[in-house]
Amino acid sequence: MKTLAAQVITPEDLLKHWQGHRALTRRVIELFPEKDFFEFSIGGMRTFAKLIEELLAIASPALKGIVNREVKPFAEGEEKLIFKAQYLEKWDEATEEINQNWEKLTIEDFNETFNLFGQYEFPIIQNILYFIDNEVHHRGQGYVYLRALGIEPPFFWER
Amino acid sequence: MKTLAAQVITPEDLLKHWQGHRALTRRVIELFPEKDFFEFSIGGMRTFAKLIEELLAIASPALKGIVNREVKPFAEGEEKLIFKAQYLEKWDEATEEINQNWEKLTIEDFNETFNLFGQYEFPIIQNILYFIDNEVHHRGQGYVYLRALGIEPPFFWER
Repeated sequence: MKTLAAQVITPEDLLKHWQGHRALTRRVIELFPEKDFFEFSIGGMRTFAKLIEELLAIASPALKGIVNREVKPFAEGEEKLIFKAQYLEKWDEATEEINQNWEKLTIEDFNETFNLFGQYEFPIIQNILYFIDNEVHHRGQGYVYLRALGIEPPFFWER
Repeated sequence: MKTLAAQVITPEDLLKHWQGHRALTRRVIELFPEKDFFEFSIGGMRTFAKLIEELLAIASPALKGIVNREVKPFAEGEEKLIFKAQYLEKWDEATEEINQNWEKLTIEDFNETFNLFGQYEFPIIQNILYFIDNEVHHRGQGYVYLRALGIEPPFFWER
């Protein structure tokens, strides 16, 4: 275990920050028309359904892997979802699982290294920040899709 | 001064995280053709030049305000920039200013409240996470613009 240097955010606040982002992403999913969620894209990019599939394959499974120190390969879209409502249901399940697994993280864990998906060997705090950044990044793309569809996205600061 | 609870990231690592994102955003600016940087947009959104103007008006000025506890209103585009190279120059100036001002932050500062731009009264750590998230969000939009222009954006994990 490493000595803890002076640090700047508590686990509780970081979880709140993450779940705030996840709540916003959920609202963006909700705003997509069913058809466009699965079909609309720009410039050859993935549909928003595909982007959300990626996010679902990261957040909760990744945190579970971290908590259990169980290295598993990244596995996306293992279950075939065909309605937006199923994505929202998975999203809500992930929200609960994240809250539960977060409780199992100790303060020391954050600075320990974990080989996420057997590919990303970084301190756990960096892995978690990556989950959040990656979600914000893809959600930003979803905002453009919504705008292109003539739909006003939620305010970015709504959490 | 509040008691510091156990926390999960050091100021040094948070700065590195932020500047890593800023380096990636700089590469996205570089990839835009001059004309498209100022003119291209989707669905009535702002051009990438306008989005970068916003980011420039936040990052360094906001951190300076925090460090000096000087509440100033948000001021965007005070200087008229007409070439992409000028944006890159401002970006690099901001990089240096951020590094310098970061040194002046104490560990206690992060949990103190600051009324950013006279509008956002939050703990400083939350303000800083907001700067990063907001940049990732707008850069994600820039990725869609690049794709729509047939230009491949950098890998998201490149920092």
